[in-house]
Amino acid sequence: MSALDSWDSPAYSAVSFPSGGAVAKVLDQRKLPWTETYDTVSTWQDMAEAILTMRVRGAPAIGVAAAYGMVLAAFTAPREPELFIRAMEEAARGLVVTRPTAVNLAWAVEHLLAHARKVAGEEPVRRSASCLERARGIHEDDIAACKRMGEHGVALFPDEGTVLTHCNAGALATGGYGTALGLLRAAREHGKKLRVLASETRPYLQGARLTAWELAKDGFDVKIVTDNMVGHLFARKLVSCVVVGADRVARNGDVANKIGTYGLACLAHMHGVRMIVAAPVSTVDLATPNGDAIPIEHRPGSEVTEIALPSGHVSIAPEGVGALHPAFDVTPARLVSAFVTERGVASPLDEASLAKLVAG
Amino acid sequence: MSALDSWDSPAYSAVSFPSGGAVAKVLDQRKLPWTETYDTVSTWQDMAEAILTMRVRGAPAIGVAAAYGMVLAAFTAPREPELFIRAMEEAARGLVVTRPTAVNLAWAVEHLLAHARKVAGEEPVRRSASCLERARGIHEDDIAACKRMGEHGVALFPDEGTVLTHCNAGALATGGYGTALGLLRAAREHGKKLRVLASETRPYLQGARLTAWELAKDGFDVKIVTDNMVGHLFARKLVSCVVVGADRVARNGDVANKIGTYGLACLAHMHGVRMIVAAPVSTVDLATPNGDAIPIEHRPGSEVTEIALPSGHVSIAPEGVGALHPAFDVTPARLVSAFVTERGVASPLDEASLAKLVAG
Repeated sequence: MSALDSWDSPAYSAVSFPSGGAVAKVLDQRKLPWTETYDTVSTWQDMAEAILTMRVRGAPAIGVAAAYGMVLAAFTAPREPELFIRAMEEAARGLVVTRPTAVNLAWAVEHLLAHARKVAGEEPVRRSASCLERARGIHEDDIAACKRMGEHGVALFPDEGTVLTHCNAGALATGGYGTALGLLRAAREHGKKLRVLASETRPYLQGARLTAWELAKDGFDVKIVTDNMVGHLFARKLVSCVVVGADRVARNGDVANKIGTYGLACLAHMHGVRMIVAAPVSTVDLATPNGDAIPIEHRPGSEVTEIALPSGHVSIAPEGVGALHPAFDVTPARLVSAFVTERGVASPLDEASLAKLVAG
Repeated sequence: MSALDSWDSPAYSAVSFPSGGAVAKVLDQRKLPWTETYDTVSTWQDMAEAILTMRVRGAPAIGVAAAYGMVLAAFTAPREPELFIRAMEEAARGLVVTRPTAVNLAWAVEHLLAHARKVAGEEPVRRSASCLERARGIHEDDIAACKRMGEHGVALFPDEGTVLTHCNAGALATGGYGTALGLLRAAREHGKKLRVLASETRPYLQGARLTAWELAKDGFDVKIVTDNMVGHLFARKLVSCVVVGADRVARNGDVANKIGTYGLACLAHMHGVRMIVAAPVSTVDLATPNGDAIPIEHRPGSEVTEIALPSGHVSIAPEGVGALHPAFDVTPARLVSAFVTERGVASPLDEASLAKLVAG
């Protein structure tokens, strides 16, 4: 049994590459929770499109998806080694530009590109299989990392209490098991009784649509709150701690994550609520000195003024009124109580504790 | 020309009682911004229903609506004085219980009930007309109060900048002109160049649907942001100040307002952004010692998990997953930079400055 089958809810997977085939499968997360639809993706361009349009999202999951995208490029690349490398480089460029904030994407693509260069001289069938093996390795490592992360994080949770999580840093955002939600799964496996509040996470509603979906499916006691209820819940002492994922962590420990995380961290800090961030070491970008250097993706305002429903996009704003849409924000390291990775926990989080963790 | 016709955008009105008739008109705000529909309301029970279902909302507006509800009760009450009073008392009870947090509602109803007692012995036609005159007086006073509030608030705004407002404390939430948005109207009349960001205000989207609608209609430069973007916008210094309304202000200055206001006030405080609250003196409830004593209305979780669209309610959450829905929160007085009323400004806001203002 490989790690790909080993997490507790193999009934669904954000992205996979079924054995024996030459296509990837992507769960269309835009259609959750209404329908569970798996799309067949057979070219790197289609995978880039799936990432760009957020059919697959979540920093670790788009890393895995992009790795499989590189495999798809290998399957269709010309036989001649130099042309093969050129085709792989083109795919790499096309995949990397889809989402600028998450660093796992670039990391996975570069990893596959380096591997492709190494095996370029082999027979097409062998080198494609080798690229697929490498991508599967990234996928398996990601699940295994989530599970180790979970073990490292267990001690941070009370034996009983209510945990707030923002966006979706779960099985759907990773190869499987999840980062922030993986910590909750591990805590439950250790007998801790945790109720979960999922902040709905406008505009994409990843909390209401995805986190609530996967946690309910796994039998968690989960309830939804709107993003603006958090301060009130903290003031009434209804939340024991907060756990979120990360899209990129700078060298000094500043964390880029889904828009709203920074406000949440400020409120947690003001109310003495523990703020836990969980992410694989591949999320740490030592080349980025601090949060100011992390590019924040600005998406179309129409994603705020129109709600994407199964029946189509429905406007919730007056005609002609636009919206701002920064998709991420940056939480300074000092507002993070604990940063949990597969190699251990940095608490407090700062340049020194992070460097030690990354050095492993 | 009465104050009822004198604010700048008489093209729309949350609630009115057209001359010569015996019915009220209520703009169905649940249908905004999609359609501008005015419902005829001819009994106090229908008015209670309109308030309960939030066709009309906003503390001052529901005060005016409830006053007109009492007028409708007077129109249909028995001729005999004692039965008249009993009918008016029944209407008062039925209207007051519709929304527990706003104090203007109870204030307006009690005002009309006291007036009804005074005129109970008069001819039915005369006493109904007298009640209507009283309700119109409350309506006119509310608009006039908003305009005076605006004048008192002008100095709090920069000559140029971006103001964030939450929920809708505008013409739609009052007799007309608005409290928080009235301040923006007055600032513009004084030549100040203010851009407005409207936080969308989940779950009811009053910011996206109502504030954006009325400000765009009035030619303001308004853009929508999701509630969870506020921290990021403050951190990037994109907001000069915040202005909101209030549903109830306790004796010590604690402010109950739409859910999300408290978190906004915390974030404004952390980032040194001025937090302005604007409300008529009738919002101050000296009988409530502090915020802890203000009842917080809890509404159905389905209002969070289902979005009310013109086509009907659409679920955004997995089946079987519920939601919390506190509709208001409490902001401690110390987080309010300035409290603006028709009698002047309390800054800092505390029991003493508030008492002085109310004594006026």
